[in-house]
Amino acid sequence: MQHIFNTDLTSALYTDMYQISMAHSHFNYSRQNEQVAFDYFFRKQPYSGGFTIFSGLGELLALLQEFKFSSRDIDWLYKHGFNDGFLEYLRDFSFKGTVHSMREGEIVFPQEPIVRVEGNIVEAQLAETVLLNYLNFQSLVATKAARIKLVARGAALSEFGLRRAQGIGGMFASRAALTGGFTSTSNVLAASIYDVPAVGTMAHAYIQSYDGELEAFRSFAKVNPEGCVLLVDTYDTLKSGVPNAITVAKEMEQEGHKLMGIRLDSGDLAYLAKQSREMLDAAGLNYVKIVASNQLDEHIIKSLFEQGAPIDVFGVGTNLATGKPDAALDGVYKLSMADGEPRLKLSENIKKTTLPGLKQVYRFTDEAGNFVADAVALIGDAIPDTIHHPYEPDKSMSLQGYTSQPLLELVMQDGKPTNAPVPVLEVAAYATERLSKLTEEYKRFENPHIYKVGVSKQLLDLRTELRNKYKKDL
Amino acid sequence: MQHIFNTDLTSALYTDMYQISMAHSHFNYSRQNEQVAFDYFFRKQPYSGGFTIFSGLGELLALLQEFKFSSRDIDWLYKHGFNDGFLEYLRDFSFKGTVHSMREGEIVFPQEPIVRVEGNIVEAQLAETVLLNYLNFQSLVATKAARIKLVARGAALSEFGLRRAQGIGGMFASRAALTGGFTSTSNVLAASIYDVPAVGTMAHAYIQSYDGELEAFRSFAKVNPEGCVLLVDTYDTLKSGVPNAITVAKEMEQEGHKLMGIRLDSGDLAYLAKQSREMLDAAGLNYVKIVASNQLDEHIIKSLFEQGAPIDVFGVGTNLATGKPDAALDGVYKLSMADGEPRLKLSENIKKTTLPGLKQVYRFTDEAGNFVADAVALIGDAIPDTIHHPYEPDKSMSLQGYTSQPLLELVMQDGKPTNAPVPVLEVAAYATERLSKLTEEYKRFENPHIYKVGVSKQLLDLRTELRNKYKKDL
Repeated sequence: MQHIFNTDLTSALYTDMYQISMAHSHFNYSRQNEQVAFDYFFRKQPYSGGFTIFSGLGELLALLQEFKFSSRDIDWLYKHGFNDGFLEYLRDFSFKGTVHSMREGEIVFPQEPIVRVEGNIVEAQLAETVLLNYLNFQSLVATKAARIKLVARGAALSEFGLRRAQGIGGMFASRAALTGGFTSTSNVLAASIYDVPAVGTMAHAYIQSYDGELEAFRSFAKVNPEGCVLLVDTYDTLKSGVPNAITVAKEMEQEGHKLMGIRLDSGDLAYLAKQSREMLDAAGLNYVKIVASNQLDEHIIKSLFEQGAPIDVFGVGTNLATGKPDAALDGVYKLSMADGEPRLKLSENIKKTTLPGLKQVYRFTDEAGNFVADAVALIGDAIPDTIHHPYEPDKSMSLQGYTSQPLLELVMQDGKPTNAPVPVLEVAAYATERLSKLTEEYKRFENPHIYKVGVSKQLLDLRTELRNKYKKDL
Repeated sequence: MQHIFNTDLTSALYTDMYQISMAHSHFNYSRQNEQVAFDYFFRKQPYSGGFTIFSGLGELLALLQEFKFSSRDIDWLYKHGFNDGFLEYLRDFSFKGTVHSMREGEIVFPQEPIVRVEGNIVEAQLAETVLLNYLNFQSLVATKAARIKLVARGAALSEFGLRRAQGIGGMFASRAALTGGFTSTSNVLAASIYDVPAVGTMAHAYIQSYDGELEAFRSFAKVNPEGCVLLVDTYDTLKSGVPNAITVAKEMEQEGHKLMGIRLDSGDLAYLAKQSREMLDAAGLNYVKIVASNQLDEHIIKSLFEQGAPIDVFGVGTNLATGKPDAALDGVYKLSMADGEPRLKLSENIKKTTLPGLKQVYRFTDEAGNFVADAVALIGDAIPDTIHHPYEPDKSMSLQGYTSQPLLELVMQDGKPTNAPVPVLEVAAYATERLSKLTEEYKRFENPHIYKVGVSKQLLDLRTELRNKYKKDL
């Protein structure tokens, strides 16, 4: 019997069945070499926020290079009714498409293309599901992480979510949390493969496995004199945990060591942090840090600081690793070109009508270095000096006097990445730098300012022309 | 650079860092052979519902057999400061514990132990994170699937969530959806490894890749005369999609084939389904099924039927695959025995105080075959004839006259599974059978009846005794 851990995750079966059904049909009409282009974009900011951190590109590009059908996969498809000719074709399949993308860690906004995949109709479709699966989730979690960092006042942030993460998706949750600005993870495997710091000291069970808390603390501190954090809430935080931690910290001092911290994992964190801080300081242990965990998110952390809680490190689990309350980013992958012609998906909801053609996104920056607006324009047209609201074309904005930067860069040519992989911590640094160029009003949690993403006149005209053409044909 | 797809997912680094820090400390005191027991249980029903489907056990037991540190893992730990003696020990580590569990697919309730792990303190701790990671998520999704099935009035249910799933956690989402009662998945890799049906036909892009919708439908139907489902909302569902589907269905009839269905993926599904049904029926195509997708969940499906929508098949994606709105089940893993002694975790919140000792769960059934209550009792004690509320001991209930069944069974002895793996569809059949024994009031969505889980007098007394002992020591 096969299990997730003995499954080849580079299998091109990691897709939706309809991608294979469609490929089968295209192959049958010898359309498999027809060139198409798809855009990845999303429609709605997660968490009712003002920005999203684009994450997941590194894993996606690495996967696309390996994305193939194994003999086992071909056998399975054969048993499920696909014919020999098509299966021979799939046996030789590999992704040879060309990908333009924004940099991983970029600050991105609804409606603008973040990734463009060009290739033949089969490879571009087969890549859809995995692209969405990798990018939607990691961008969701990276954004949550960045939101938490915004209110963390420089506190260290550790991702603790593996136990409540969505199965092995927890590997991506840890990676994405780091790209969004977290400083470490408790997930050792993720730390080892993504080369990021792992942290963790003790659980309640460690303390319960000893007859007394003090004995448990002492034993642990002796083996871990560096980086020792004692969990103080197993029996009673203020009556037992903190006093015992103070005793051990004093004993450590005798040995020339310093207790790194105590961890609060239940109860009223604001109150307990203040009381613990006082007790530690009164004992001359002002260097001992306070770590807090237990159902944290950006709103609770913000509130803890507003209450004056002296917390130095936060461990954030479930709400981060699952991207609660959203749980998903609504990113989609839509056809924009086929057979050399721009394509459009109509919808009764104008907001769901797509932007046709091959496009570039330009980001405009003011003299102070802050982001002002993004413009989506057709490749080949001049950089626009005016943008139009994508759904209310009467609304426009002049971009005169701002400097522009194209955001979509070539990242994969004919199935080969054009650059070395970017380490996770470099992605994080880029995200931090870019986020610093977004002014505060876009970053607040309540009714953030909506960042302007507009389209060029030519693109708007193309969309109108195609829409009228389709509607006439109906 | 390492990526998720070239990572050995049987690595025992798939755990929280503190598990390794604690193991290190235990090893240092030669406590690595000390025997302990842990219980897996959860505290709160997901979705404010009345039941949970236990899922994920099959993958967990398979993983535990393979859970080891590779040379690469050991090298990584060495670089991160762990000493040679401990690393030699880890190099030989494998999980040799003994596991008792409820059957996968069982209907489970808060506070009762669902799985018990017994083993040495190192293996039992190292297994914690992966156990929680596998079981919490799959149980969450299986429960969502079962809730959807409850309102689906026999309609076929297909899991469509991979593109919005939490990364590769989508593999577990598909598996869990099937254990909870879904009939198929769009996730081909999951279908191939878990041996469940895969389904899927066409996306909007297929239609857009043709100059006209009718041409696209025709081409697809010709290659896929069996099981053909045409997506009818690319341009205009009622003006274009359904009429074109009818044309193609009639053409298929000429060739001796039957169009299987049409799929609605946007707009007012109730209205469009009714209109489409009328149009199909008027054309003599009453055999053509209506498939609906787009942001569905149990509440929307219930409402669609209440509105009389004639829908035969539902494709459910994001809300199922991410377990929205909960996104996580709050399952925990708590020490109940160490060194031959029952253990307790105290909490200021009595509901977070754990149940000590080795326990069995008995399910009581009435004469009609319906589940009445579960009793948690100490192993070695008689099957209880009365249960007590776990936090309000004055509340009790007699179990006289009901038949009882022990739910925790041996599933792994000294690291070896005691039974053959259970196929996913068998798990699903068991879940369906068990859910049929839970009466309606526990299954309604609004304020469901709370199923009684009580504890035996002896267990209650043991908990009180230990609590008093710890409190006195403070």
